[in-house]
Amino acid sequence: MDGSATTLDERRGALIARHAPTLGAAIDAVQTRKSWSPYSDSPSTKIHGPDKPGAGKAAFEARLGTTFDLGQPGVVGEVGEEVSPFTQKPLNIRYPKSDPDALVGAAVAAMGDWREADFELRIAMCLEIAARLYDRNFEMAHAVMHVAGQSYTQAFSGSGPNALDRGVEALAYAAKAMRDVAPSATYHRNFAGETVALEKTYVLVPRGVGLVVCCASFPTWNAYPAMFASLATGNPVVVKPHPIAILPMAIVVETSRAVLTEFGFDPNLVTLAVDTLAEPVAQGLVDDPRVQIVDFTGSPRYGGHLERTVTGKLLFTETAGVNTVVIESVADLDAVARAVARSSSLFSAQMCTSPQVIYIAPDLFDPLSAAIVEQIDAIANDPAMASGIMGTIQGEVSLTVVAEAQSAVADLPGVRTLRDPAPYAHPQFPDARTMTPLVVAVEDGSHVDLYAEERFGPVLFLVRKDAGEAVMEATDLARTKGSISSYLYSTDEDFIDRATPAYEAAGANLSINLTGAMWINFAAAYSDYHVTGLNPAGNACLADLAFVASRFRIVQRRRPAA
Amino acid sequence: MDGSATTLDERRGALIARHAPTLGAAIDAVQTRKSWSPYSDSPSTKIHGPDKPGAGKAAFEARLGTTFDLGQPGVVGEVGEEVSPFTQKPLNIRYPKSDPDALVGAAVAAMGDWREADFELRIAMCLEIAARLYDRNFEMAHAVMHVAGQSYTQAFSGSGPNALDRGVEALAYAAKAMRDVAPSATYHRNFAGETVALEKTYVLVPRGVGLVVCCASFPTWNAYPAMFASLATGNPVVVKPHPIAILPMAIVVETSRAVLTEFGFDPNLVTLAVDTLAEPVAQGLVDDPRVQIVDFTGSPRYGGHLERTVTGKLLFTETAGVNTVVIESVADLDAVARAVARSSSLFSAQMCTSPQVIYIAPDLFDPLSAAIVEQIDAIANDPAMASGIMGTIQGEVSLTVVAEAQSAVADLPGVRTLRDPAPYAHPQFPDARTMTPLVVAVEDGSHVDLYAEERFGPVLFLVRKDAGEAVMEATDLARTKGSISSYLYSTDEDFIDRATPAYEAAGANLSINLTGAMWINFAAAYSDYHVTGLNPAGNACLADLAFVASRFRIVQRRRPAA
Repeated sequence: MDGSATTLDERRGALIARHAPTLGAAIDAVQTRKSWSPYSDSPSTKIHGPDKPGAGKAAFEARLGTTFDLGQPGVVGEVGEEVSPFTQKPLNIRYPKSDPDALVGAAVAAMGDWREADFELRIAMCLEIAARLYDRNFEMAHAVMHVAGQSYTQAFSGSGPNALDRGVEALAYAAKAMRDVAPSATYHRNFAGETVALEKTYVLVPRGVGLVVCCASFPTWNAYPAMFASLATGNPVVVKPHPIAILPMAIVVETSRAVLTEFGFDPNLVTLAVDTLAEPVAQGLVDDPRVQIVDFTGSPRYGGHLERTVTGKLLFTETAGVNTVVIESVADLDAVARAVARSSSLFSAQMCTSPQVIYIAPDLFDPLSAAIVEQIDAIANDPAMASGIMGTIQGEVSLTVVAEAQSAVADLPGVRTLRDPAPYAHPQFPDARTMTPLVVAVEDGSHVDLYAEERFGPVLFLVRKDAGEAVMEATDLARTKGSISSYLYSTDEDFIDRATPAYEAAGANLSINLTGAMWINFAAAYSDYHVTGLNPAGNACLADLAFVASRFRIVQRRRPAA
Repeated sequence: MDGSATTLDERRGALIARHAPTLGAAIDAVQTRKSWSPYSDSPSTKIHGPDKPGAGKAAFEARLGTTFDLGQPGVVGEVGEEVSPFTQKPLNIRYPKSDPDALVGAAVAAMGDWREADFELRIAMCLEIAARLYDRNFEMAHAVMHVAGQSYTQAFSGSGPNALDRGVEALAYAAKAMRDVAPSATYHRNFAGETVALEKTYVLVPRGVGLVVCCASFPTWNAYPAMFASLATGNPVVVKPHPIAILPMAIVVETSRAVLTEFGFDPNLVTLAVDTLAEPVAQGLVDDPRVQIVDFTGSPRYGGHLERTVTGKLLFTETAGVNTVVIESVADLDAVARAVARSSSLFSAQMCTSPQVIYIAPDLFDPLSAAIVEQIDAIANDPAMASGIMGTIQGEVSLTVVAEAQSAVADLPGVRTLRDPAPYAHPQFPDARTMTPLVVAVEDGSHVDLYAEERFGPVLFLVRKDAGEAVMEATDLARTKGSISSYLYSTDEDFIDRATPAYEAAGANLSINLTGAMWINFAAAYSDYHVTGLNPAGNACLADLAFVASRFRIVQRRRPAA
């Protein structure tokens, strides 16, 4: 709170002023697509001071075994099924379960003041929520670790500042789209010799309640842009976390509600709709006519169902796809092997940008596949490195995915297991659910079915294939199964030039010849577009004007000028 | 063609340069919402010279009884069922019927070069098409008259420059949305002590084939923005005119194909899919997976079907609604009566902005209803004025609408017919299908069903109702049945202030206290937003960023900087 500002209006005005430089810089960043962030994604105490890491851990631990009270309406019971992938023990956090109908009703009731508020204030409120979440990011890192299974460093950065950046990026576009609408105009025109002068007013009106359905493995990254895009444009938000990964979103909702209350808005503009695997509530919310925007991140199965059935509402999805790497030729074999091995190991390939299929030109296949396995082994055999990179396996189901892949490849002609999956011993958490990648060599072209569907977990297929054919198959997979990130390695510029149109036509974002310190599957907010909307991986582009421009509508009135 | 430019590239460059001032002025206009147009909507020979009117009429007449050859692929026969509302005789124009599948296939085949073209060129091409259509506007006016039934002056202005303006407005937003995406960026960031430098390229990729389904009564007005928005963003367009109003869109498609050919593009980027009432082709095109954008203008019945069934595609609709006028108090009774009478008479109320229900406060009901009827009589009884304002009845079905309304009100208690409908004698076309408005007084509040659905034709209900209740009913109708234009008259600023939030909440664009020379239901491109998307009247806002921003997607590639 600004000490010098005393009235609510003054505090709100000060809030807009305080966040204006950040918003301005974010708008500049999305226009230039340069590297920028208002946050640091390093957990270093040199940046954050000596106290925050311990305080954040303590805040997380204090939650265990308690009831997470959000002060929401319509509470009808308590739920909570979270199990830490690091301890494989229940967190025993209970969340009040609200009647979804009551949450939507409360959201609608809260909407009036929010809709009436200056959109610059709504944006500043979201920036304030983001700032508070950044301040709580050590606590958030532990929360994400123990529901999603990400390593501490990844949870801190990828689910913290990197995710908040995607939210702020959406705010930049929301600002651009809403500022584009003149609030009023005076219109003069001659009709039949009479000069008509009209005053016109153009009012931005939100669509209705926004539903944000989060995934289990990376809940905050897609939630922030969806929440902020809807809130900034005047729509209240009901957050529906995955039933086995509630805590991070409960923290987000708690923070949002506190900021809303502090600045005089109804906290029911942001609520949490918890459920269980046995009794899901998402579909009821999707079907509620008051819900007018649905942002979904999760399985292709349910996402596809929404894409085939939701009409008359705005629907943004991010589901999954089959990400591929095509290796035609390399300048530095070890560097490419390392880039592929690291990206395939990061969070045990439980990321929407994780590669699953590595096409290798026949002349490179033997040395490169050996080098990739060697690099994966180097990570897997170093528990400290493995824990930092691979983290844990979020759900038991991903172990099943690995086991199914193992049995699918057994005894197939032309298919060999190059590397067996195995748990690694986590240095801090002896009971952690870990699994290093299964690596399979596919040297017979008839086994495309083995790898043509997403296998969500540490399963990597190395496919011996002519690079030209590989580009065709990779882009065909992108077009038909979806792809969020595709990768290409070649020293032949002509080959690259011939290949890129196929990726463009498949709507596949392409990284070419990336090696080095940056994870090749790192997507930078403000600079990298995420999800093209041109293939089955979804349509939620983070972020562009299309991600925000339809979340509000324009209603006008006009009358003779005074 | 620019005489000094000889190569294709030079001619294309000259085209961009030639239209740049128009585009710049259009962008300025949509940002300021001022009155602007690059065209004149008067048919005066002082503006257009002495030859154009006759030449346009002759061009129209030369079409009669001939086959309109567009040079399209997949021709399987000929159709043509148009009957002039002015002569009630068939036009006998035959249109080659192409297999819809062949048109979509040809559009896809044509798409490559168009997608690759600089979007500034695509926009300039659309501006050139608009300029050519403006040049042919006298011909277009006769074409619109004799299929849609609009008066000559309305056909010239409303279906000519006013419609082209809505198209150019969409081009302004397309330019804004596409220019917002940086074509490339250099990205620098430190990762683990290593400075990573990446070159990133952001490519705008169209979604697929755009289908534009046109209505019979006002075909060009919604077609231009839809066509231009899709074309500018790289999508080919298949135009599906109403089977009884083909000619105007055939002229549009012919003009578009000529311009495309002249500048080295495949003319199949714009094709015409004609059909008959007995064998409609729209649904097959909607269902074609290559069709990714649908712009529909027409009946609430089919529009609603599309809204309930189309998934995974971009759908823009404009259907209809129940437009209301609420009269609480008046400064000048005759001026209000005249404004209502004129707008209710214009094109015999066959416009999406025509009012249908006039709520009048009890104390004003008798004098105002008498004055409205008197003003309608003044138009109807002057054949020259009637022909200029009312034009004709587009379809026989609207005569049925009037007859049904007449029998519905007969002998109802509290309901009186204030004015019987009757043909007026058109001064130039003795066989014209004309009908002056039925005016019904509803003084019993229980008869809301009489006027709560759109009656598409010259039917006007004057409802005696307390103004506060009238606002509630009017906005409830807007919310549940749709509304494109709502009207309010009051001298009480407090009443206006209390009423406007209800209209906002219903997504109803509101004109307050409009009288005078401008038709109160005139919607000015660049200044007036049309269709809010917040009620059942449709979602095709003309025009805003949301109308264009999702018609293209962004695909990126990135690689180490050189």
